[in-house]
Amino acid sequence: MTRTPAELAACIDVAMRRQPADIVIRGARIFDLITGEMRCQDIAICGQRIAALGEGYEGKRIIDAAGLTAVPGFTDAHCHIESSMVTPQEWERMVLPRGITSAVCDPHELANVAGTAAIDYFIASAKTLLMNLQVQMPSCVPALPTEEAGAILDAHALAPYAKAHALAEFMNVPGVIHGDADALQKLSDYSNRPIDGHAPLVSGDALNALCAAGITTDHECSSPEEALMKLRLGMTILVRAGSVGRNLEALLPLFESELSGNICLCTDDRDPRDVLLEGHLDAAIRKALAAGKDPLAVYRAACLTPARHFGWRDRGLIAPGYRADIVLMPDLLDCRAQRVLANGIEVTEEALAARPAAPSSAPFQGSIQVARAFTAEDFAPPMDEANVVGVVEGTLLTQALTRDTCTTPPAILALAARHGKSNRIGRAWADGFTLREGALASTVGHDSHNLCVVGTSPEAMALAANALRDCGGGFAVVKGNQVTGLLPLPVGGLLSDAPWQEVAAALERLHAAAEETGCTLKNPFLALACLPLPVIPHARITLDGFVKL
Amino acid sequence: MTRTPAELAACIDVAMRRQPADIVIRGARIFDLITGEMRCQDIAICGQRIAALGEGYEGKRIIDAAGLTAVPGFTDAHCHIESSMVTPQEWERMVLPRGITSAVCDPHELANVAGTAAIDYFIASAKTLLMNLQVQMPSCVPALPTEEAGAILDAHALAPYAKAHALAEFMNVPGVIHGDADALQKLSDYSNRPIDGHAPLVSGDALNALCAAGITTDHECSSPEEALMKLRLGMTILVRAGSVGRNLEALLPLFESELSGNICLCTDDRDPRDVLLEGHLDAAIRKALAAGKDPLAVYRAACLTPARHFGWRDRGLIAPGYRADIVLMPDLLDCRAQRVLANGIEVTEEALAARPAAPSSAPFQGSIQVARAFTAEDFAPPMDEANVVGVVEGTLLTQALTRDTCTTPPAILALAARHGKSNRIGRAWADGFTLREGALASTVGHDSHNLCVVGTSPEAMALAANALRDCGGGFAVVKGNQVTGLLPLPVGGLLSDAPWQEVAAALERLHAAAEETGCTLKNPFLALACLPLPVIPHARITLDGFVKL
Repeated sequence: MTRTPAELAACIDVAMRRQPADIVIRGARIFDLITGEMRCQDIAICGQRIAALGEGYEGKRIIDAAGLTAVPGFTDAHCHIESSMVTPQEWERMVLPRGITSAVCDPHELANVAGTAAIDYFIASAKTLLMNLQVQMPSCVPALPTEEAGAILDAHALAPYAKAHALAEFMNVPGVIHGDADALQKLSDYSNRPIDGHAPLVSGDALNALCAAGITTDHECSSPEEALMKLRLGMTILVRAGSVGRNLEALLPLFESELSGNICLCTDDRDPRDVLLEGHLDAAIRKALAAGKDPLAVYRAACLTPARHFGWRDRGLIAPGYRADIVLMPDLLDCRAQRVLANGIEVTEEALAARPAAPSSAPFQGSIQVARAFTAEDFAPPMDEANVVGVVEGTLLTQALTRDTCTTPPAILALAARHGKSNRIGRAWADGFTLREGALASTVGHDSHNLCVVGTSPEAMALAANALRDCGGGFAVVKGNQVTGLLPLPVGGLLSDAPWQEVAAALERLHAAAEETGCTLKNPFLALACLPLPVIPHARITLDGFVKL
Repeated sequence: MTRTPAELAACIDVAMRRQPADIVIRGARIFDLITGEMRCQDIAICGQRIAALGEGYEGKRIIDAAGLTAVPGFTDAHCHIESSMVTPQEWERMVLPRGITSAVCDPHELANVAGTAAIDYFIASAKTLLMNLQVQMPSCVPALPTEEAGAILDAHALAPYAKAHALAEFMNVPGVIHGDADALQKLSDYSNRPIDGHAPLVSGDALNALCAAGITTDHECSSPEEALMKLRLGMTILVRAGSVGRNLEALLPLFESELSGNICLCTDDRDPRDVLLEGHLDAAIRKALAAGKDPLAVYRAACLTPARHFGWRDRGLIAPGYRADIVLMPDLLDCRAQRVLANGIEVTEEALAARPAAPSSAPFQGSIQVARAFTAEDFAPPMDEANVVGVVEGTLLTQALTRDTCTTPPAILALAARHGKSNRIGRAWADGFTLREGALASTVGHDSHNLCVVGTSPEAMALAANALRDCGGGFAVVKGNQVTGLLPLPVGGLLSDAPWQEVAAALERLHAAAEETGCTLKNPFLALACLPLPVIPHARITLDGFVKL
């Protein structure tokens, strides 16, 4: 964003002490992410920016930060806001007070339902936020050409956004390595911008091909060996600390000073209950520090490296000329924000309430387009008893099992088209949900967001699916012949319009209801929603049934 | 530069082994600047880029690199090609075989003579080169508003270049800290691009103000303490290893892994004789390694950090998708390039000869606009005997002396207007040239490039000055009443059209002639040329005489 001569003059006047600063943060210990020093200096702020570090600066307002440590605001280097099931404004209200002042979001989920209208909604929303929300372009909608999503975003549709936006996770790996024309056109159109990758377990020639095509990040590493292989090809590794994909612990060895210029943190998908209980990116920082990792390496990954990777010249440091994105906290190692500034504004409920009005979510209501009510016949057990998708707690990677290799008696798994384009319903088996009786249903179903249902009987599954058809989408639990849990997500079948704490509480009730069915998974709905994922090994459910990857 | 779908497809085909590479570098040990590892892998090149690292890639051409170490090409993060006294094409012929595949040049010198025509000449020249020459915009022409240069580049003149170019060293520090309108307008116009600084010994509020104004680098640090002060404010430090400004030894403590993301190398001004004798940026790398500094820190500063600082996403690493800028050398610690590739082309005399024709330098001939021949009266000794500029070997910093504090009897020092705008001649004294009899003259006179003359007698000085007036500019030596040395620099009074080795040889003869006059300075002409520098402490010569800074 161009700085005006008047803004420059104001900052210079503050630095030269000809004018008082708008805010002076006094007495904080600044953690210097370049030198690794901890220094006591005042931070003089003018408008959106830091104007000076030093002693004795005068300010119109003083923030007494004695005893607090100041670090730059954190960046979530890759996330899908939709996975938190709230609108962007509400998402900001959830994460910004925790110190996440920047995020790179990929509106891939809503775009799979509503196409460019979803992109425009996120871009318009970002403009109303206090934080720096960078909206990337969903590169693979649908994720694979064979998918039936609510929209198709080909190169032609995405080209107009290349002037101001980067390209989000390029998950169509086969498209790249086989030189698919539309994939190459997108990569070409965005070749002057950062292009994020998504390449779980990809290696060798195929990984070379992705890098050769201009893809420069990966957030799917599940082992230090995999990360090292990708670092060696020049990739920046976004260490994921999400609600389903939890790679932080496995990747802790990466948090060394030597690698810190190439390691970022991200959440990818984060459940609001987890935010309430554990935190957001701050929880990941806390965990890495609790594991004894070097604070300089950890905070560089959280603050400086993503800014440099994405080319934000004025973010990621506490230094004059930089945006005043500052987190004040009592303890560097505990990483709990006490006060947060974003673009020079202190984050308070009042400041959040004073934001410009959010864009309307009305265009995304009524997105469950299923012509007739579901029946038990729609969810009859599949004929082939070998096709079992095995869910593993804590990872997106699934197992391709047979009934013989299951840990528990498998449930029926189904995926039903819900974008009004067909009536297809694919069926298979699922292991790991440990349902005793009943069903779970979700209109969140990565990436095309068709209706996923898992259950012990066709009848319970039909009941759960119809509950969602009736309420505009969301999550449902059926126990016996009763709907015992329902969280409506009327915005695209993915988001609630409610405050995030209400969504978290509703999810809590929903999960309690799921537990009543016997399910022992920590997060059965995100697990269910990820079973149709067409880009994650090793097994999945499609509208045509079981597929082994 | 946008990559076409066809180029992407070709790279992918090579990575996937569906097509042979254009070149395969076989058997080299690759120094990985991310992990610090040394690995034996083939490098498969497709067109301008690296397509893959791995084993067994087939190529139309094989470069046998057994026993050689491969590192990314080096970047000179800040230089004035004019200081090497050759044209850009010839400069490339001088530095590229040494492994300098990228450079950030500031055509500040020729722009002081010829304005935007000089900028356009450099931009057009860059397009004919094999290397990546990034032409920055000279931000301060003239260096200070009080200077009499050949051109004035105000914000209006520079604005059109902001779309594609960065802003070079902003040396008008008073203009920034006092909020000069034209300075602020330039900083505003270039606020989305990197803005280089120039702030020797600036500290405190003024340094805060420079950073607050968006200036992000400094190449004038002369001590680790000064560098640390600037690093703490977020600046990237360009460690200078030039012919006059030699800061490398003093700044060796900066070459530590922890800081390597914020340290670059540059030459600023490099004499072709020094290139012949010692090398260019490779000599700086060699020196740092010989001093025992960590190779990872040194090569990061030479290769990776400048690329990241300036936002070149595809340079600075040997990795797929990156430009094939590769240096092959027998010994990592000795840094002597044996073979060099730039943008996928092996650098040979043939490849250099096959470059597109250089733009004409004719518009810059005849730039010495002095109406009448100089006379001895023009160089009469100054009245005030206190005003002595003290030259110190090896630094641009000068001393403000009086005749009483001189180390030797001072010589007469003069600066004569040569852009046809006035007939002013300023006079003072100079200490440190140790001339016995005679004079040295130069139309290189930073930054306005008026005619500088130093001598033991007015007669010798007039003779030297007239020799330059007659030959279109350059350097002259007078001993007794004879011109004993002359290097014509007809292009703007700054550059020769001759091959660089000829210029180096001519300089050698010139310096021998200077030595005959008793001068013991290693590089008396660069020292002389820097005495009018309006932005370097502590004393200088102007068209109005002595000034203490």
